[in-house]
Amino acid sequence: MSLDPGHRPPTARGRRTRDAIVDAAADLMHERGIAATGLGDVLKASGTGKSQLYHYFEGKSDLVLAVIDRQLERVLAAQPALDPASREDDVRAWAASLVELHRDGGGPFACPLGVFSGQVDAEPRWREHQAAAFRQWQERIAALLARGQAQGVVDPARDAGEMAVAVLAAVQGGLMLARLHRDLQVLALALGAAVDHVRPQPV
Amino acid sequence: MSLDPGHRPPTARGRRTRDAIVDAAADLMHERGIAATGLGDVLKASGTGKSQLYHYFEGKSDLVLAVIDRQLERVLAAQPALDPASREDDVRAWAASLVELHRDGGGPFACPLGVFSGQVDAEPRWREHQAAAFRQWQERIAALLARGQAQGVVDPARDAGEMAVAVLAAVQGGLMLARLHRDLQVLALALGAAVDHVRPQPV
Repeated sequence: MSLDPGHRPPTARGRRTRDAIVDAAADLMHERGIAATGLGDVLKASGTGKSQLYHYFEGKSDLVLAVIDRQLERVLAAQPALDPASREDDVRAWAASLVELHRDGGGPFACPLGVFSGQVDAEPRWREHQAAAFRQWQERIAALLARGQAQGVVDPARDAGEMAVAVLAAVQGGLMLARLHRDLQVLALALGAAVDHVRPQPV
Repeated sequence: MSLDPGHRPPTARGRRTRDAIVDAAADLMHERGIAATGLGDVLKASGTGKSQLYHYFEGKSDLVLAVIDRQLERVLAAQPALDPASREDDVRAWAASLVELHRDGGGPFACPLGVFSGQVDAEPRWREHQAAAFRQWQERIAALLARGQAQGVVDPARDAGEMAVAVLAAVQGGLMLARLHRDLQVLALALGAAVDHVRPQPV
């Protein structure tokens, strides 16, 4: 599955226009929800015209896929330890930086990707795109855990991919409940347990 | 905070009418979302009249609070190990039964409570009610963990309340990602890690 729906603009100006549309849509959909965000709102917020929007996207359904891609980009950009070029192997430091990220600026915030989960469920194209985005995030976490295994700080006896599923679930559940209670400690406890659990087990 | 908004009907017939309204609203809101569920839809689905609905609820905002209560009731009723009268102390058995619950009937399903999280965020009354519902669930899990501590199957050195936060986060993140990927194994992995983590630590 391509994680870049819509036309790729060949010019810098075209890319700026497309970016402005996707950014505005992402912000509105994050704040109000997908259903409550109309194309008219997106045009207004991005300062672009209808013909520009329809040049890059077939319609709202297409735009939602581009928004999911953008949110994944934002999520991964905020976690440099998950970059494929990163040599970071300290899972605990990654988890701590995630908590700090949500402390800065008055969080805990809803996860830019996770917030859409209930909203994409009934639309197969959206759901599959959201699932693919989460798989990418999960694979990045699995790679971090595998680096930790190579350094002896993560249990080498267990599967990094399976551990990554549980760690990402802790991130999502932790963020959701932290946001609900407006209490970052909830995220810290959830991540602390997940990170503790992947340590090498005493023989 | 009262977890029973709206008038309590004094007669059995009144209770049936109120129940029919809340059940219909809960099903519709679970399926379509809160924003997309109008009072007209609820009246139609419940076979009740406008005057009956307004006799029990001031309006949609009130009804949402009653729906949250109903979903909490459903969630707790499906987990007998969390009943205050239960003597169950086996956290692993509770987690396994949660997975089976979602296997039966073709799950994984979205959490009846968790599915509302993004949708109640902007409305303080709804959010606080949702937070109170999650606190009740969390306290029931903490009580199960405390019974496990008394039996030596849960780490007695750690706080049952803090462990319950991490366990509930694993339930929520696990359910959300399992539903997204239509893969129950995701829930099993998330819960397995959480349950494993609360075991007594080797000295």
